[in-house]
Amino acid sequence: MEKEISQAVIRRLPRYYRYLGDLLHAGVERISSNELSVKMHVTASQIRQDLNNFGGFGQQGYGYNVPYLYEEIGKILGLNHRHNVIVIGVGNLGHAIANYISFERLSFTMIGAFDVNPELKGKKLGNVEVQLVDEIPEFLKTHDVDLAALTLPKESAEAVTQKLIANGVKAFWNFAHVDLDVPEGIVVQNVHLSDSLMQLSYNINQLKD
Amino acid sequence: MEKEISQAVIRRLPRYYRYLGDLLHAGVERISSNELSVKMHVTASQIRQDLNNFGGFGQQGYGYNVPYLYEEIGKILGLNHRHNVIVIGVGNLGHAIANYISFERLSFTMIGAFDVNPELKGKKLGNVEVQLVDEIPEFLKTHDVDLAALTLPKESAEAVTQKLIANGVKAFWNFAHVDLDVPEGIVVQNVHLSDSLMQLSYNINQLKD
Repeated sequence: MEKEISQAVIRRLPRYYRYLGDLLHAGVERISSNELSVKMHVTASQIRQDLNNFGGFGQQGYGYNVPYLYEEIGKILGLNHRHNVIVIGVGNLGHAIANYISFERLSFTMIGAFDVNPELKGKKLGNVEVQLVDEIPEFLKTHDVDLAALTLPKESAEAVTQKLIANGVKAFWNFAHVDLDVPEGIVVQNVHLSDSLMQLSYNINQLKD
Repeated sequence: MEKEISQAVIRRLPRYYRYLGDLLHAGVERISSNELSVKMHVTASQIRQDLNNFGGFGQQGYGYNVPYLYEEIGKILGLNHRHNVIVIGVGNLGHAIANYISFERLSFTMIGAFDVNPELKGKKLGNVEVQLVDEIPEFLKTHDVDLAALTLPKESAEAVTQKLIANGVKAFWNFAHVDLDVPEGIVVQNVHLSDSLMQLSYNINQLKD
């Protein structure tokens, strides 16, 4: 667990977690890397290699114990810790993300929601009352926030991010269409919908050729 | 333009397009690969290599002509074609995506929206009236649809996708937390929010060590 794991492996881990969750849900107790390989459309050797990064988990002739592997990957992904989330930007996407966070029940709890629009103040987003972006520093004095979901327009994303960092927030789930400029030690996970849509557009175009 | 471009390059193109759009918006007429490199935090040689895949565009001693390069990358990405989109699943995420598509004005037009919930029938999503998923085959007889945005729960995503494919839809922007099983010649672009959130969770966990 001490050695450095490549981000390529980390990117694949949630997919293992997702498939193992489905298997668990279906009551499957154990699975071989070959069976998992067929399900996931990746090679069995890729699966073995990926999981060997974390010390294996598989047993020769038995395969993987599904509940155990599911739990272990969950731990590696940090899903055994509770994460407090604030949502910045209470538009459609903010609603979707708030709803998503509470629905998925991974280990994320929305404890605050903020917008610049005074008309939204006091309105409910899930279980929390929307506050104004100006109230963030005060809020952060009394609440531990593990990550901020940025569902606000790109024009204001950079300034809000700097304010959040100055007040101790270290991780961002960024939906704004901008690459945030952050110092060392700050984590940003981008979901750039426009980039994704353009990549799709390119591939649609290739179909036509 | 005839040679095969790697998906890694294609994944980076939207980011170039985004930065060039910002430059254009700011009235910048030309930029060197070095200047662009500083802005984008990638090496100048990476930029030159990427753009050389499409025949260059740069001129020694001049750099890149911003409006020209913006337009050319737009063409490569297929953004000069209009794409008709239908949205399947009119929850919060469906609303967010519908709003996003019309707001971004790339080259995408939402021409239909569908849900399984009879109570939503006839309600407006943007400019279109929500229809029932059962009405999709009839709709597809009279409308050209370039892509379907799947913003529905994973339990129904697979069945709806098969129905759409059987009725001629060839491209999917998939937000359901499932890897769709599609035949050759069908394009799927996944936005797996749960995978993204888990990757963020892992990286938050690493911060604490």
